[in-house]
Amino acid sequence: QKCALDGLMSSLTKSVASAVLEKVTLSCIDATAKGSLVDCPAGYKPTGCSCGNACGSWDIRNDQTCHCQCANQDWTAARCCKIALK
Amino acid sequence: QKCALDGLMSSLTKSVASAVLEKVTLSCIDATAKGSLVDCPAGYKPTGCSCGNACGSWDIRNDQTCHCQCANQDWTAARCCKIALK
Amino acid sequence: QKCALDGLMSSLTKSVASAVLEKVTLSCIDATAKGSLVDCPAGYKPTGCSCGNACGSWDIRNDQTCHCQCANQDWTAARCCKIALK
Repeated sequence: QKCALDGLMSSLTKSVASAVLEKVTLSCIDATAKGSLVDCPAGYKPTGCSCGNACGSWDIRNDQTCHCQCANQDWTAARCCKIALK
Repeated sequence: QKCALDGLMSSLTKSVASAVLEKVTLSCIDATAKGSLVDCPAGYKPTGCSCGNACGSWDIRNDQTCHCQCANQDWTAARCCKIALK
Repeated sequence: QKCALDGLMSSLTKSVASAVLEKVTLSCIDATAKGSLVDCPAGYKPTGCSCGNACGSWDIRNDQTCHCQCANQDWTAARCCKIALK
C-alpha cells in the first residue's frame, strides 16, 4: 500500500499544483527615475535594469534598487516582478 | 482551541505550499528579432531586454514587448519568463 | 448541483492558491564573474544580464549562463531568480 499511497499523494499534489498554477502568475511592473537609482515597490524584486545614455552596466542593491553605473546617468529604470494572484 | 487550529492550518498550508513548490518552477525563454522591437510569447512576461550595438537603454511596452531605444537598432532580444509546472 | 460543485471547487482552489501565495515568493540573487560569462547557481534562472564597459548586448546560454557580447569584456553579471518558500 505504501507505493499506492505515495502515488496517490503525488498525483493529488500535482493536481493541487496545476489548480494553484491556474490562479497565480508572474506579475511585473516598471519603475523609472531620474539619475542612477530607482527602487522597485515593496513586494516586487528587480529582474533587470535599463539605463539612459545606452549604458548597459548596472547592479542591484539590497535586492530592491537598480543602480546604473555610467557617469552623468540621466535616468534609470527597473523591471520589477513578483508572484501574484491572477 | 482557536490557536491550536490556527497553528494546524498554518502548518497545513506550509506543507501544501512546499508540495506545490516541488511541482512549479520559473520557466524562461528568449525571443529575438531584427530591429528595435520583440514580443514575448503569450503567457510569458519580459523580465529584461538586450539590444544590439551595445545599447543598454530599453523599455517594455504593454507588459509584453521589449523596445531598444538606440538609433539604427540592428536587433532586440527579450528574456521572457512565466510560472509553469516542472 | 454540477454548477454549485464547480463554484465550490473554484473558490476552494482560489483560497488554496492565496494561502500558498502567502508562503512562496520570487527569490533572486546576483552572480558576477570576470570576463564575458557567468552562471546562475543550480535552481535559479537568469532573468537579465549586466555587462562591464557599458555594454548592453548580452544573451543567455543553456538557460543558465549570461554572456556579454562586447569585445574585451571585463566583467559579466547575472540576475538569477527562482520560486521559493518565504
